[in-house]
Amino acid sequence: MLRNPETQPATAASRAAAAARLLNADRLKTLMATAGLDAVVATAPENVTYASGYWAMSQWLRRGPQTYVLLAGEDLAASTIIASTTLLDLIADQDIWIDRIRRFGYFQIDRIDGPLDTVDRHQAELYGLADDKDPIDALCAAVREAGLERGRIGIDELGLLHGYWERLQEKLPHATLVPALQLFRSVRAVKTTEEIERLRRAAQMTERSIEAALGVAREGASECDLAEAFHNRTIAEGGYPVLGCIGFGTRSAMPNVQPSDVRLKRGEVIRFDVGGRYRHYRADIARIAVLGEPDAKVAAYYRALHVGTRKAIETIRPGVRTADVFDVAVEAVRREGIPHYSRSHVGHGIGIDGYDPPDLAASSTAVIEEGMVLCVETPYYELGWCGLQVEDMVVVRADGCESLMSTDGRLMTAG
Amino acid sequence: MLRNPETQPATAASRAAAAARLLNADRLKTLMATAGLDAVVATAPENVTYASGYWAMSQWLRRGPQTYVLLAGEDLAASTIIASTTLLDLIADQDIWIDRIRRFGYFQIDRIDGPLDTVDRHQAELYGLADDKDPIDALCAAVREAGLERGRIGIDELGLLHGYWERLQEKLPHATLVPALQLFRSVRAVKTTEEIERLRRAAQMTERSIEAALGVAREGASECDLAEAFHNRTIAEGGYPVLGCIGFGTRSAMPNVQPSDVRLKRGEVIRFDVGGRYRHYRADIARIAVLGEPDAKVAAYYRALHVGTRKAIETIRPGVRTADVFDVAVEAVRREGIPHYSRSHVGHGIGIDGYDPPDLAASSTAVIEEGMVLCVETPYYELGWCGLQVEDMVVVRADGCESLMSTDGRLMTAG
Repeated sequence: MLRNPETQPATAASRAAAAARLLNADRLKTLMATAGLDAVVATAPENVTYASGYWAMSQWLRRGPQTYVLLAGEDLAASTIIASTTLLDLIADQDIWIDRIRRFGYFQIDRIDGPLDTVDRHQAELYGLADDKDPIDALCAAVREAGLERGRIGIDELGLLHGYWERLQEKLPHATLVPALQLFRSVRAVKTTEEIERLRRAAQMTERSIEAALGVAREGASECDLAEAFHNRTIAEGGYPVLGCIGFGTRSAMPNVQPSDVRLKRGEVIRFDVGGRYRHYRADIARIAVLGEPDAKVAAYYRALHVGTRKAIETIRPGVRTADVFDVAVEAVRREGIPHYSRSHVGHGIGIDGYDPPDLAASSTAVIEEGMVLCVETPYYELGWCGLQVEDMVVVRADGCESLMSTDGRLMTAG
Repeated sequence: MLRNPETQPATAASRAAAAARLLNADRLKTLMATAGLDAVVATAPENVTYASGYWAMSQWLRRGPQTYVLLAGEDLAASTIIASTTLLDLIADQDIWIDRIRRFGYFQIDRIDGPLDTVDRHQAELYGLADDKDPIDALCAAVREAGLERGRIGIDELGLLHGYWERLQEKLPHATLVPALQLFRSVRAVKTTEEIERLRRAAQMTERSIEAALGVAREGASECDLAEAFHNRTIAEGGYPVLGCIGFGTRSAMPNVQPSDVRLKRGEVIRFDVGGRYRHYRADIARIAVLGEPDAKVAAYYRALHVGTRKAIETIRPGVRTADVFDVAVEAVRREGIPHYSRSHVGHGIGIDGYDPPDLAASSTAVIEEGMVLCVETPYYELGWCGLQVEDMVVVRADGCESLMSTDGRLMTAG
């Protein structure tokens, strides 16, 4: 069943519980203190949902619609959601931990004369709020209401429309505005318990979707046939389709291969680099299958790549530099059978966005922390031959990695 | 089958054909001439795909990744795509009409020693291009290559990262940069034949997905059960799920209702405000069903709303003001049985984005043009009762509207 991420009516108790869910409040406060910030404002959809639990539909479906969350550093309970009037219903119907709402824009909703249920009453209250007309005006009002008009405010610059930064500065002449996208990304890098559970579900839903796709893999089946089975399973698990790179044979060497009508032949590689969304949280995993028996080169190269990922995962623990994880993975693959193996990275963080920090890259100076969730991968693309890849999702615990996967990433046989 | 939008290898002939497909080149040239522009640059995903046919995956899946298309006004054949090296494979595998490519960033691809097929050879050529390292540097190089460094250039400001406008201006000190998002939107407002056919497919795929959802609508079925059937059908038709507001009873009065575990009861309204993507093009339609017989108020109100939409559609033809269409619809609904009916708009354009110009709004000064594709709608939301809505997609022809729908929008019976 395709499920509304957050359909239970919010209560004080559920809000308190939800507060601990997505937002890593302690880490936010620490990073805000380090940056000397009095408040931060989420503007991009992933940061808005992360900060508040609020999935403001239009903002996710299109580019342009504005929704903000003002998070006050001293007292997160004094935070404010700035929402379009057209999207207030989702505030009433989702599990959101912020009570202060400001709205902007006209939208007509009628109501019966009689009593309303809890969600409808909440909606009616929200529609009854004063209309701030414009998102930037609403945000400025929220800043003033929180007494922050002379504060130092971090603005997630990713979701603001062109020119809105300047409008905001003009209307808050005494505030110091600084870009805060990187701060939000840093906060998101270390996951809460709820986030880890959603990511585990997303990963395993995606593994079962691969299994469903392999269930229709036979000679003459098309990449689209596998994609249909894949996405149907994701939907049946309550997820949304996002990433669906599925390619056969030489097409599997295209890093972003999109399903086509090309048909599967015996002995061909099937590469999956795939992952849906489960309650907003992303999966990104890779698996390889062969229709029938793999040839010697596929088996040998795949084994080398698989060892590379395993060695990287064994290396990961709090305090290790990501650049060292990169070196371990690349050296293992080279030693185990692909001497010319070369990469820019061997993985990345994942969360409400498909790429959270850190990058497991040669050029990275990041250090692994407990609670990070990582995609660890060793892809290999050879034009004219095929693409091979293993990509697992793991969570970093105090003493090393815990896998979020239910399968071990061995080369699979289809048909 | 979930289908890659554009999987056929590009040939000179197919590129020429594709050139006429999505981009309304004549309208672009006219609007550029009116604005005195020498070139325009697409930056948001919808404008990049519209301008070139290039679906640059990461840009669509996430916020932040940069892809540009420089369209030279004098000679559109001299246009350039600026792409991340990580996404070059999709240029080789899609039906794209722009030959000039600039790439930025490191990405490792190996290749066999022997001969490659057409797509792989094209990929190899693209990976062989010089690396411009950075998207803005690549764009500046393309501008200079086209001899436009002293030109007046319209920049679609929607897709640029914060600060990139300033970087571009600094590197092109003699160019005049002006915002061009509204120009792109204006061009997109009048559709090409290929766009209209994709929108027709998107609309009818969505109608069949509603039919599939109603196939599982019975007492005790949940909103999620209907959503699963709905999205599975969209996927089977080669579409992607996007908009899926499906609500029962009082929940149907939430404009953006997201499917929950709430179960259907006899006599309840089921409201669908839904639409997937077909080869990048959006549907957005609404239909209402009742489990069993509608009560008198539902029947009467729905009839009034249906008449309102029909009257609006009968009014639409080239040269008519959208504000007049709004008045016709609202007055018809009031006269036919909902005297307090009030709205901000009765529809909007649709295309590669869910909201293209024009708005059918009281406040709009827009005038209907031949070739526009419009969603015409008369929603009514009454908290504590239900939401009713009919929304059809139509294309404007010389003498009036042609419907893109296969169903007539009458109140449906489920179960």
